[in-house]
This record gives sequence, structure tokens and C-alpha cells, in this order.
Amino acid sequence: MQFSANQIATLLNGAVEGNPDIEVSQLAKIEEGGPGDLSFLSNPKYESYIYTTNASIVIVNEDLVLTDSVKATLIRVKNAYSAFTSLLTIYNQLKLDRKGIEQPSFISESATLGRDPYVGAFAYIGKDVKVGDNVKIYPHVYIGDNVSIGDNTTLFPGVKIYHDCVIGKDVTVHAGCVIGSDGFGFAPQEDGSYAKVPQIGNVVVEDQTEIGANTVIDRATMGSTVIRKGVKLDNLIQIAHNVEIGTNTVIAAQTGIAGSTRIGDHVVLGGQVGVVGHIQIAAGTQVQAQSGINRTVKQPNTKLGGSPATAYSSQLRSQVIYARLPELERRLAQLEQLLAQKEDLK
Amino acid sequence: MQFSANQIATLLNGAVEGNPDIEVSQLAKIEEGGPGDLSFLSNPKYESYIYTTNASIVIVNEDLVLTDSVKATLIRVKNAYSAFTSLLTIYNQLKLDRKGIEQPSFISESATLGRDPYVGAFAYIGKDVKVGDNVKIYPHVYIGDNVSIGDNTTLFPGVKIYHDCVIGKDVTVHAGCVIGSDGFGFAPQEDGSYAKVPQIGNVVVEDQTEIGANTVIDRATMGSTVIRKGVKLDNLIQIAHNVEIGTNTVIAAQTGIAGSTRIGDHVVLGGQVGVVGHIQIAAGTQVQAQSGINRTVKQPNTKLGGSPATAYSSQLRSQVIYARLPELERRLAQLEQLLAQKEDLK
Amino acid sequence: MQFSANQIATLLNGAVEGNPDIEVSQLAKIEEGGPGDLSFLSNPKYESYIYTTNASIVIVNEDLVLTDSVKATLIRVKNAYSAFTSLLTIYNQLKLDRKGIEQPSFISESATLGRDPYVGAFAYIGKDVKVGDNVKIYPHVYIGDNVSIGDNTTLFPGVKIYHDCVIGKDVTVHAGCVIGSDGFGFAPQEDGSYAKVPQIGNVVVEDQTEIGANTVIDRATMGSTVIRKGVKLDNLIQIAHNVEIGTNTVIAAQTGIAGSTRIGDHVVLGGQVGVVGHIQIAAGTQVQAQSGINRTVKQPNTKLGGSPATAYSSQLRSQVIYARLPELERRLAQLEQLLAQKEDLK
Repeated sequence: MQFSANQIATLLNGAVEGNPDIEVSQLAKIEEGGPGDLSFLSNPKYESYIYTTNASIVIVNEDLVLTDSVKATLIRVKNAYSAFTSLLTIYNQLKLDRKGIEQPSFISESATLGRDPYVGAFAYIGKDVKVGDNVKIYPHVYIGDNVSIGDNTTLFPGVKIYHDCVIGKDVTVHAGCVIGSDGFGFAPQEDGSYAKVPQIGNVVVEDQTEIGANTVIDRATMGSTVIRKGVKLDNLIQIAHNVEIGTNTVIAAQTGIAGSTRIGDHVVLGGQVGVVGHIQIAAGTQVQAQSGINRTVKQPNTKLGGSPATAYSSQLRSQVIYARLPELERRLAQLEQLLAQKEDLK
Repeated sequence: MQFSANQIATLLNGAVEGNPDIEVSQLAKIEEGGPGDLSFLSNPKYESYIYTTNASIVIVNEDLVLTDSVKATLIRVKNAYSAFTSLLTIYNQLKLDRKGIEQPSFISESATLGRDPYVGAFAYIGKDVKVGDNVKIYPHVYIGDNVSIGDNTTLFPGVKIYHDCVIGKDVTVHAGCVIGSDGFGFAPQEDGSYAKVPQIGNVVVEDQTEIGANTVIDRATMGSTVIRKGVKLDNLIQIAHNVEIGTNTVIAAQTGIAGSTRIGDHVVLGGQVGVVGHIQIAAGTQVQAQSGINRTVKQPNTKLGGSPATAYSSQLRSQVIYARLPELERRLAQLEQLLAQKEDLK
Repeated sequence: MQFSANQIATLLNGAVEGNPDIEVSQLAKIEEGGPGDLSFLSNPKYESYIYTTNASIVIVNEDLVLTDSVKATLIRVKNAYSAFTSLLTIYNQLKLDRKGIEQPSFISESATLGRDPYVGAFAYIGKDVKVGDNVKIYPHVYIGDNVSIGDNTTLFPGVKIYHDCVIGKDVTVHAGCVIGSDGFGFAPQEDGSYAKVPQIGNVVVEDQTEIGANTVIDRATMGSTVIRKGVKLDNLIQIAHNVEIGTNTVIAAQTGIAGSTRIGDHVVLGGQVGVVGHIQIAAGTQVQAQSGINRTVKQPNTKLGGSPATAYSSQLRSQVIYARLPELERRLAQLEQLLAQKEDLK
């Protein structure tokens, strides 16, 4: 795809400064841009690159004052960052636009597809599956019986969705993600073995969520494991059975949430965090990476860190002293010695 | 599937109290049950729901004493919980029952399938593979050359089993699980690069095990990585080369076991635990979530926590004091000051 | 495959001691070897097994002095370990040698394959993909549009590579690995929701790297996430967007690297390590398992441990005292009491 400075300026409602006919076919950072690249300048920290960049076109803020000559054609807009981001979004939509049904794919007779579907080769769509409009189902995706998928949702290659799960609209699920696998429920038997507790619930993933690659969300024992609207889950996350993740909560990679725990709205969990089962985390809670939460957090907007997690500020102080524990013990031993000497002197 | 109260009571050897002809088609929790749902009451904590539930049928203990009127039809049995669980198991077996060979699938000429197989579309079965009776191989499963699969085993979508591995009977492997990938073995070379140590062993998974979604079990360098009978592994677990996991051991999600370590029987490891390589963990050991085990545990039934892990009870005491480290240092500084003043006073 | 002692000795430039015509078809550890097995003895610790092993052939160092009679046929070579390793490599190459294009597979018309390809059934090769010579693409592999794959690279079953990524020569990628999924970038909006930041960069994996099963490497927001030459990544690792991993760096399982962090050359990270975003780790840094690195490491060859990580030696001392914190507090309380008594006595 080639675009001229003029075309881009028209799209962004901006003004061209330089050659309006110069064309670009790629996006690049300003410090890495070469001929044929479109870039942007928003952060003043990078301002010096405007004079050295080889990018053909740079989008800049309308109030940028130049102090030297510039090779690139500039497009001046109100907000260079948000203008560039909306270009990125359009670019990505064009790039990832796919339609049609590739062969061989497997679509059960009782499944229904909406308007303008993409079904990649080797995708599997089970019985009674309902797929909305503009859904993209990449190769090697597995959709079990009775699953429903909302409009404008994208399932990247190799996503596996077990039977009876419900996926909302405008959802993005990345490659290798598993939704609806059995919860980890086993009842100890007298002979030391474990009997499986059947997991007959499902997973409900609401609208506008994004779920990372190779993340796993287990189905509920009964009822539903629920991922609320707007939740963003990173890669390699474990969500156990009957968990509920509140609206607009964001969870970083490799974090695990144990069974039946309820995470509130607008919570932010760092990477590699662990949360035990059967607790509640209040709305707005923020948790440092690698923390371990082992009890209910009642107070909204609490900041926590450490394993087991405590208030973040006190955790920081304990960390500092932990690093000085050998010194602390030395000081203690000195006092003991001093007092012992005093006793001897008496 | 519709069942009447009478049919269910006959199956469970129970007594109907209410309308014997009322029918149910779904299972639900007592607090969420609606018309057409079957539920159960076992935990006295939930007893009040028996008077308010909209479930059509509720299975209860035979000694339940009612203090008010009840809308639902009751089925009285000896043990409501275990009766309900056996119903769940039957329900799930019916629900997940699949037979036949879907097309297109890839079955090598030299592979042998047992009685009543299910082979999903896009499943791949390599050369000389031996599959037992009643095995379910879901879509996108890969079974490498010379693998054997025991009777009644289920491989959910996208399971990948490398060549030469041995999977027992009554095994369940969840979606995306990888069995038999190369162990992580590299020999440092003089030029700073690493030469691969070929991994020519395999993985042996014994009977009645269950392995979670996206879990990885590496093949042995030589010999076998072994998962003993009855082991339950949760999701996203890493089992390195030449590890052995003892009978009926249970491991929660995101835990990792490094190479050549031997975990005993009836061990319980929490989530996100790490165990270093080349050590032994005694039978019955129990380890808290997020712990790190860095030495052999000789004493059976030890309870451990922390990273590095120590006896759980002492770990708990250390954790409490860790949270009070700033206070501890303040007290120490006070003593130092006090003693310094005394010296000055002399 | 059957080989005689004579054939193996010729291959290894060794001398046969015993029956030159005896044949072996498998490799085994000396302590587990049976008839038909080939084994080796290098570590003197295992020397006693030479007199008891049932292996048909054992490769030994040329200077091994026997003190008793031996059943096995011996092959004496300069270095038994490296001779055996090179045999393993040959064995594995023969074993994993595959050629040809299985059906059904999906190869876009605009894709180009090199010489001697293996393309497994259900593999998907997108538009304009360029595949080098001797590449092995196992079943269920997904290769997105515009990806290039260098010579002699192996992609094991179910590997997913998103569009525009670049994979070098002599690369091995294990089953279920995802390369090029979207980085985790979301901009908070005024209404509490998050807007996706489009991720239009790619992933570049250089030559002679090996990447473990179910590991995820996210594409850059812009530019490239880069895995340099000779890097070895274990299973279930998370590499976030715009990360760079230096030449010959080795990372153990379940470790996570957050966005835009640069890891130097010859770094060694243990398992379950977490590294925060936007920092640099100097060349030769070594990090203990389960550590958390939260700041730039400037000094090359630093050894770190703990979370947050500090110098490994001081971390060890702090760990020892942490385990004795209850005792430390008791000693402090005793001193306080002693001093209080002194005050009272005045």
C-alpha cells in the first residue's frame, strides 16, 4: 500500500509542509525511518531526530517550531501522537483484513456463520455454534459444540474454545489461548487416589476484551468463569474455574488466579502475580509484579506488593532492610557484647 | 436430554417428594437454579436456599428436616453430594461422547486404532502409532511416530505428543499440552556458543493421570521422563527432562520442576512453585504456592513454604517479622542510642 | 536401524574389544542398558556398571583399565562422552529426517519453498512466505503472510508465527510456541476503558537459536523484538514487545521479560525469573531462579538473586538471617528488657 503526503494529510485533517506527492509504504520510528517510511514526532525528547531522520514523511504537532532545515515532508496536525495512532489502527485493519472461507476447513452443518466471515484452512467449528458478523477465525482454531461468538471478534491461529462457552463482541483472542478447559477439581479418595469432579460449567468472555497468547481460562465446575467487559489479559496467564475478573481490569503475563476468586473492576495486576482461591480483590487494587495475594482485599484502590503481599509502601521499606539484614544482625551482636562486658565489669 | 424426577430417583436409588413427572434438562447451583434445572443441597450453609430456589428438582440428604414449604420436587438420597457428583459424571460422559473418524484427518497406514475411536478432523497420527480402545482424539491433535495411547484416554484439541512417548489408560490431556519436546540441554563451547545435547529419551505418562492445558513435559535426554499413575497436573506447568513425578501427586498451575528431580508419591505442590534440578522430594511433602525448593527433602510429609523454602511454620513466623522489619530496626537504633548516652554519662 | 560394533568403531575412529559383529538398535544409559543397546562410560562414578551392564556395546575412554571381566563389547575412543554425543546427534538426525509435502496442507500460491522441504499435513503457509532449504515444517504449524524462514530450520507441531516475522537459519522452535502475537499495549481512556495501541512491528529470530514449547514472543509495537544469534529459550517463557535478547544468552523455563528491556550477550537467567520493562541487563549477568530484576544492571558478569534482586552473595546472607528472624527479634527483646531492668535498678 502506497500513500502520498497529500492523501494522509487529508485523512488526518492536517497541513503538508514539503512535497505533497512523496509516497510512503511503511511505518517506522523517527530514529529508524528510511526512504518510503512514515513516522511521527510527539515526545520533545526525540525532537532532534526531526533534523536527521531519513523518513519520507513525519507527522508533527501543529505548534512545532523548527530551528534548522528538515529533509522530510512534514504533516502538521493538532496531536501528532493520536493522529499517528489512528493511522496505525487503520493500517492494521487493512493489513489484517481477511474474508472468505479457506479449504479444507470443518464447519458443522448445524453451525451458523454471520456476514463476511473469515474461516481459515484447518479451522474447526462444532455443532450448533453461532458465529456473529465480521468474525475472523484463523487457521487451526477449534470451536467446540454450542459455543457462541459475537460480532467483530478475532480468534488468532490455534485458539481452542471448549463446548458451551460464550465469547462476546469485539473480542481478540491470541494464538494458542485455551478457553473452557476443565477446572482443576479432584476429590481425595480413601486409597490415596483422586476422583475427578466433573466440570460442567462454562466460560463467559464479555465484549471488548483481549486475551493473550497461550493463556488458559478454565470452565467453571458449575455456573461460569467470567471475564467482564474490557478486560485485558496478557500471555501465559492462568484463570482457574469459577473466577470472575471485573470490568476493565488489566493483568500482565504469567499471572495466575486460583479458583473461585473474584477480582474487582479496574484492578491492575503485574506479571507473575499469584492470587489464592476463594478471595475477593476490591476495585482499583494495584499489585506489583511477582506478588502473592493470600487474603481478601476489602479497601478499594489499595497498592500491594510482596509475597505474601502487604501495603506497597511498607513492603518497600521491608525490602530495603531485608537487604541490610546481615548488618542488622551485626549491630545486634555488638550490643549484646557491650552489655555482657558491662556485666563483667561490675 | 430431559429426565424426570422418577427416572433420576431410580438411577440414584432415592425417594421422590413432590411431582415425580417434572422434568429437568440442566444442572445448576441451588442458588442459581431455575425451571428445568436439577440441583442439590449438601452443605447446611446453603440450607435456606431450599425454600427459595426455582430449580425444578433438588437432590437432598435423606435426613433433611424441612421447616417450611418447598416449591421444588425433592429426591432424598443417602449422600446428596456424592449422588450429585455421580450424576455429573454420567452427564459429562453423555455430553462428551463422540465416535467416528472425521474428515480430513491424517492416519498413517502403519498406525493401529482400537475399538470405537473418535478421531477429529485435522488430527494427525504418525507412523507405527498404537491407539487403544475408546480413545478420543480431538481435532488438531498431533501424535508423533511410535507413540502408544492406552484405552479410554482423551486427548483434547491441539495436544502435541512427540515421537516415542507412551501414554497410559484412562488419561486425560487438555488442549495445547505438549508432551515429549526436547529437554533443555546445551553444552557450552569455547567460543561462547552452546552445542545442543541431543534429547533421545521419551516421556511415559502412566494410567489415570490428568494433564492441564498448555502444560509442557520434556522428553528425557536418555531414558524417560515419568509421570506416575494417578498424577494430576494443572495448566501451564513445566516438567523438565528426566523428572519423575510419583503416584497420586498433585501439582497446581504454573509450577516448574527442573531437570532430573524426583518428586515422591502423594506430594502436593501449590501454584507457581519452582523446584531446582537433581533433587528428591519425599513422599507426602506439601508446598505452599510460590515457594522455591532448592534442596532435597528427605523427611516424608514435610510442610514447606517460602523461597528458598523452609519449614512452613517457621516461614510463617519469619513472614510476620519481615512485615515489621522497619519497626525492628527502629528498636535496635533506640537501644544503640540509649547505650551511647550511658557511655557519655559516665 | 541396526549397527554393528565394527560399523560404529569405524565411524568413531575407535578400537573394538569383543565381538565386532554384535548389533545394537537403541541407545541407553549404562545402568539401564539391555541386549541390543549401545551405551557409554565416561564419568568414573559409574565405572562399576561396566562389569554389570547388559548393554551389548559400551563406548569407553581408550585409557580405561579393567579390573574384572566384562560381558559387553567395548569400543575404545579418545573421549567417550563426546564420541557418544556425536553418535546421538547422528542418530537424532536420522530419526527426525523427514522430506516431502503431506496432504492436506495449505501453501499459498505466492509462497516459495526451498530445496528438500518437509511440510506436514495441516500446515499453513501464508502469502509471500519465503522458506529456505532443508526446512522442516511439522503438522499444524501456522506461518503468516510475509514471514521468512532460513535454511535448516525446524518448526515443530503447532508453532504459530504471525505475519512479517523473520526466522533465521538453523533455528529450532518447539511445539505450541507463538512468535509475533501482539504486544500488550493499551492506552487508558477517560471512561476507564483501554484503547488498543496497534502493534505493527515484528519479531526477528536470528540464526542458531532454539525456542521452547509454548513460549510466547510478542511482536514490537514498532520496529522489532529481537532474539539474537545462538540464544536458547526454554519452555513457557514470555518475551514482551520490543525486547532484545543478546547473543548466546540462555533463559530457563517460565521466565518473563517485560517490554522494551534489553538483555545483553551471554546472560544466564534461571527459571521463573521476572525482569521489568525498559531496563538493560549487562553482558554475562547471571540470575538465580525466581528472582525479580527491577533495575538496570550496568556491571557485566554480575551475579544476582532474590526479588527484588541484589548481589547474589549478600542475598544468600540475607536469606540465612531471614530464616532466623524470630530468633533475632527474641534477642532484641531480651536486650530491651535487660536495659529496662538496669534503669529500674538505678
